[in-house]
Amino acid sequence: MTTNKNTIYYTLTDEAPSLATCSLLPIVRTFTKAADIDVKITDISLAGRVLSAFPENLTEAQRVEDGLAFLGQLTQDPDANIIKLPNISASIPQLKACIKELQAQGYQVPDYPEAPANADEEAIKARYSKILGSAVNPVLREGNSDRRAPPAVKAYARKFPHSMGKWSKASRSHADYMRDGDFFSSEQSITVAEPTQVRIEFLDQNGQVEVKKELGLEKGEILDSMRMSCNALRAFFEETLQDAKESGVMWSLHVKATMMKVSHPIVFGHAVTVFYKDLFEKHGELFKELGVNPNNGIGSVYDKIASLPRSKREEIEEDIHACYENRPELAMVDSVKKITNLHVPSDVIVDASMPAMIRNGGQMWGPDGKPKDTKAVMPESTYARIYQEMINFCKTNGAFDPTTMGTVPNVGLMAKKAEEYGSHDKTFEIQAPGIMRVVDAQGTVLMQHDVEVGDIWRACQTKDEAVRDWVKLAVNRARLSATPAIFWLDAERAHDMQLKNKVEHYLQEHDTQGLDLHIMSYNEAIRFSMERMIRGLDTISVTGNVLRDYLTDLFPIMELGTSAKMLSIVPMLNGGGMYETGAGGSAPKHVQQVEEENHLRWDSLGEFLALAVSLEDMGRKQNNQRASILAKTLDAATGRLLENNKSPSRKTGELDNRGSHFYLGMYWAQEVAQQQEDPTLAAQFADLAKTLAENEAQIVAELAACQGKPAELDGYYHANRDTVKKVMRPSATLNTALASV
Amino acid sequence: MTTNKNTIYYTLTDEAPSLATCSLLPIVRTFTKAADIDVKITDISLAGRVLSAFPENLTEAQRVEDGLAFLGQLTQDPDANIIKLPNISASIPQLKACIKELQAQGYQVPDYPEAPANADEEAIKARYSKILGSAVNPVLREGNSDRRAPPAVKAYARKFPHSMGKWSKASRSHADYMRDGDFFSSEQSITVAEPTQVRIEFLDQNGQVEVKKELGLEKGEILDSMRMSCNALRAFFEETLQDAKESGVMWSLHVKATMMKVSHPIVFGHAVTVFYKDLFEKHGELFKELGVNPNNGIGSVYDKIASLPRSKREEIEEDIHACYENRPELAMVDSVKKITNLHVPSDVIVDASMPAMIRNGGQMWGPDGKPKDTKAVMPESTYARIYQEMINFCKTNGAFDPTTMGTVPNVGLMAKKAEEYGSHDKTFEIQAPGIMRVVDAQGTVLMQHDVEVGDIWRACQTKDEAVRDWVKLAVNRARLSATPAIFWLDAERAHDMQLKNKVEHYLQEHDTQGLDLHIMSYNEAIRFSMERMIRGLDTISVTGNVLRDYLTDLFPIMELGTSAKMLSIVPMLNGGGMYETGAGGSAPKHVQQVEEENHLRWDSLGEFLALAVSLEDMGRKQNNQRASILAKTLDAATGRLLENNKSPSRKTGELDNRGSHFYLGMYWAQEVAQQQEDPTLAAQFADLAKTLAENEAQIVAELAACQGKPAELDGYYHANRDTVKKVMRPSATLNTALASV
Repeated sequence: MTTNKNTIYYTLTDEAPSLATCSLLPIVRTFTKAADIDVKITDISLAGRVLSAFPENLTEAQRVEDGLAFLGQLTQDPDANIIKLPNISASIPQLKACIKELQAQGYQVPDYPEAPANADEEAIKARYSKILGSAVNPVLREGNSDRRAPPAVKAYARKFPHSMGKWSKASRSHADYMRDGDFFSSEQSITVAEPTQVRIEFLDQNGQVEVKKELGLEKGEILDSMRMSCNALRAFFEETLQDAKESGVMWSLHVKATMMKVSHPIVFGHAVTVFYKDLFEKHGELFKELGVNPNNGIGSVYDKIASLPRSKREEIEEDIHACYENRPELAMVDSVKKITNLHVPSDVIVDASMPAMIRNGGQMWGPDGKPKDTKAVMPESTYARIYQEMINFCKTNGAFDPTTMGTVPNVGLMAKKAEEYGSHDKTFEIQAPGIMRVVDAQGTVLMQHDVEVGDIWRACQTKDEAVRDWVKLAVNRARLSATPAIFWLDAERAHDMQLKNKVEHYLQEHDTQGLDLHIMSYNEAIRFSMERMIRGLDTISVTGNVLRDYLTDLFPIMELGTSAKMLSIVPMLNGGGMYETGAGGSAPKHVQQVEEENHLRWDSLGEFLALAVSLEDMGRKQNNQRASILAKTLDAATGRLLENNKSPSRKTGELDNRGSHFYLGMYWAQEVAQQQEDPTLAAQFADLAKTLAENEAQIVAELAACQGKPAELDGYYHANRDTVKKVMRPSATLNTALASV
Repeated sequence: MTTNKNTIYYTLTDEAPSLATCSLLPIVRTFTKAADIDVKITDISLAGRVLSAFPENLTEAQRVEDGLAFLGQLTQDPDANIIKLPNISASIPQLKACIKELQAQGYQVPDYPEAPANADEEAIKARYSKILGSAVNPVLREGNSDRRAPPAVKAYARKFPHSMGKWSKASRSHADYMRDGDFFSSEQSITVAEPTQVRIEFLDQNGQVEVKKELGLEKGEILDSMRMSCNALRAFFEETLQDAKESGVMWSLHVKATMMKVSHPIVFGHAVTVFYKDLFEKHGELFKELGVNPNNGIGSVYDKIASLPRSKREEIEEDIHACYENRPELAMVDSVKKITNLHVPSDVIVDASMPAMIRNGGQMWGPDGKPKDTKAVMPESTYARIYQEMINFCKTNGAFDPTTMGTVPNVGLMAKKAEEYGSHDKTFEIQAPGIMRVVDAQGTVLMQHDVEVGDIWRACQTKDEAVRDWVKLAVNRARLSATPAIFWLDAERAHDMQLKNKVEHYLQEHDTQGLDLHIMSYNEAIRFSMERMIRGLDTISVTGNVLRDYLTDLFPIMELGTSAKMLSIVPMLNGGGMYETGAGGSAPKHVQQVEEENHLRWDSLGEFLALAVSLEDMGRKQNNQRASILAKTLDAATGRLLENNKSPSRKTGELDNRGSHFYLGMYWAQEVAQQQEDPTLAAQFADLAKTLAENEAQIVAELAACQGKPAELDGYYHANRDTVKKVMRPSATLNTALASV
């Protein structure tokens, strides 16, 4: 793997980021080749992962490399340098759409067998299950997470603040969560002293034991178990619906059905069947026959009844509408298309939807297209409480002010699938009353829960090595940023108390002299951080994995208007580095705009920032002087781009993603040409700098000219790369200039 | 003063407590005389204070002792033992009513000269000003404050919880306060190293200096100064009115115009003239002529226009009503009588009104007599923030549960008029633009504020000795109660940071080993205490004077339904003790019920509790064994009274204050008769115990028989004592039994 010393692996993902890559990479490579750096594309798109999972179904020519497996191995290489763009965490409907598209393109990949009828179909489903949901990150994130707003980005937000909705002191909006019967209230946690094997068992009421899973645990590993009561969950949904109806607020559900791909679709499904209780009571049998799966949303009902005779279909549709009479208004995903919050589980993702609501003065969109106060329902209380804390804070202090507020960077525990929140392979929907328990090799019961039918039980692992590295990262970050750092550890969570022991232990390995380190409960920590934030002060949040995921959207969206502008680094346990670009999802709406009007509003700022840190690390680690120069000049170029407002506009006809790439290229060339550390390099880029500046108007015009008419991409999940390249590189002048370097 | 060793000074105050005293004291004396303890009455009622202020206007026979001055001296006596009942903190309208009543009774006390026309009237006003507002407590409170819920009371609340309104998670209610321009934002504070003289000066724009006040400061004394901007205050009122109108919540004002007798009436007056802006703009000149004083509320307008010709009066009344069109609904004091929140400054007192609102699910009463969500306006932000914190907490966690919640006792800084919140003699309404400043003997400017016309400027003192004693009291209380104690000190308040230095210094004088002591900002402290409280845990609040006043209503009203049931002790700096009974005010409505139906619902529990601690301290200090026995048996009797639910009912015809006194007497006699420490004493009370038990039905019947018809008290502020005694002791059987001991 010696070649990796000079290689940046740049991921090809999905939707908007993948389109942007086609425009950006030719520019990037123009620069990196001057430093002998190879920028290699690795395909980890949803389509790519589907294709690589079924080589035997494909022709030789159709077969593709398993990019994700390759990168997974690469993470172990101390020289690994990976730039990771946002990809689709596929829901079942998305996976099915992708399969359908591939099949239409002539790839004979199998259908997704929702209810496998035989062993073959079981096997197919098993392969697909590895593609669903949060499938990429757990493979690549072989380290903890270090995320922060780069100074240039923060300065930009202070100068050009994004819009913030006004918060009324009399707002009725609030977060609502279970007070009992959820994972939080039942969490148990242990740390094993020595390496051991444990079994997750189900003990039924007849004393029969079924082994659900065997796990090898490392020395010092933390294992949690917890149970969400189905009855409590459904009672909670009913109660919140009645409360919202009575108090006249909208009702909205915020889960993460894509990432928490086992537990949250079930939770979502219960919301659907409680909300549409009368409907499911009346047509339950028929729905079962039709294969309606409420976990896929009320959309599943519409899908499945499409084949029914018109009169029956209309009866059911009327019954759906009748449900709305007795229920509170539902928050809408698209009020024009009448897509509600309960239509599809992948539309509303808590870590994005809650910050959006809070940024919007606590309001979501109602059926009439108007913003309204909302009850934000997040059944599991562990993390929901922080949103209520922020809502109360905004009611009291008003909306955050991007021009003055401080920043809350994050150091997140993530390595070795720590606190892997999906816990896909250790989550079970209980089929019979009994006991779920964790038993060690000696037969000692380590943890156990009484369970009832429908309960969700899950276990979760956290490896000692990951925690130790996380503590180190937190100390380093606090030192480098000279900023107070708060470990968010809740005294009422069994898991966090195990973690706290380790934190206190591993902190002793470091010189913490002069550092301002604290351990606080989540509510204390967010309040402390917000109080500082509105006074312009910064506070590092040092958190577990789920909070990492949530907070690195929540705070950036308040501070910067988006989480896509965050610097997101994964310093790998083995020494390599992964540089993630944005956490803003892969933006399906952006693709729609390209298809309709050939305007890509995707902002590649995250890519610019990630590339700069990637080059900086490579320069330092490989003693590549030119890489260091490219890093510094790229940062300077990015600063100028922001300062001169050359980021993509949302409006067709104005500067889009491609135009911003041009400006980045021009500024970068100018910066390289002006630097004096390496005159040879400067000379190399003098011409390009000159050409681009002279042809600025021409290039911008060419990039604008293509807009305003539909663009054909020959596919959505698996677009034709050549077609896309043509679409994304429409300026002959720019293409020529780049080629001439 | 050797006689004081065996004397309890029992204050005669106003309204309901003074009526109750006439029934209770004969019972109490029956017991105390057995321990050679004399219970002496000292008159500190409003009428008594007025009479004693003008001896030269009265006949020899009419003259009365200055009870307050006497008690003031007594506080310096190490043997002082004072039981202090609630008295009227008179507003100007109350004072005037009292004067009118006295004059009608033939006492030639002078009228209150609101706008003195000459030196004589100035002198009269000056004498009356010492009677207004919080005039009693500053004289008597020669020590700090130690308040807590007695275990029997807490047990009673857990067993028989008071009603608590439901909090909706979607409640619109909130506290609103100034974000700038208030006292909080302008506070400055110094500690003087040595004894010194300072001048409070006004420097006008021509450089002329006017000395407003000279102050002698002790070594280590803290002096604060602060300014509330009139413009900012009026803009704030306008903003809150518009916001409440827009968001559809009621508007309510919560100040403490009685105690903060200089600053808060001015603040209240601004609220009146901003709310009724159009009215005051149109009729301002006329109102001036008529002597309307908006600081006395809109009621002042009604009073003063009463003499106008009917047509003019009706025009003005119409203009008043027109104001309501453009304003939010006003919270009502009495919706039947159409008495609004802005009618009289003494009706709504923040420390009672805010707990009542919070206890009532965040709602106050609207013009239609229905409970409604309310914007609670408290201009000064220093303390208003704690109410918003509690409101947010209740929205999130629901109403407090008296059956499970912990308790928050208070150790309050109060001695030597520390943080005297009225700051009556150091508060100024600014008449011209310029500078208010504090200058020392050397001419050095210690603090200064730019001021504009209408601004309110005030200074406030806190003596070192008081702080030192307060810290000692906190440490003792934390040790005795084995409970965490929080010093509420706000890092953003200049005064509190001076205090913090002293706290940290004086804590070193004590053994704090094993104590759980913290210093927190107000928001942190209340949140910390509430989080513990809902988990059944207790937390001592160690606070300054105003927070003492507010918190000893706020928490007791949540925990016990009333603050009147708190044990409230002032351990005097010189060694004596004052035992205050309840902080629930003197209950004018109770008197009304007596006058109309001869039922007194006043609960003397506070008196029972105070008397027990008074006896306990006397027993210990004077080695009076019988006093100790009386204390213990009284506590036991009180416990039985609560347990058997023999407290007064609110309903005419049922057991009232007099009946509960009977039961206390019976239980007390039984307890004394049963104790074995002092057989002689036991024997002395055996007969009484027997007689009362045997005649229980008869006595209760006699006490009920008098009810249901009007009772004549021959005066309100200055009722005829003999008449009152007859009214309050209607049971011949009881009277005879007591007399026979």
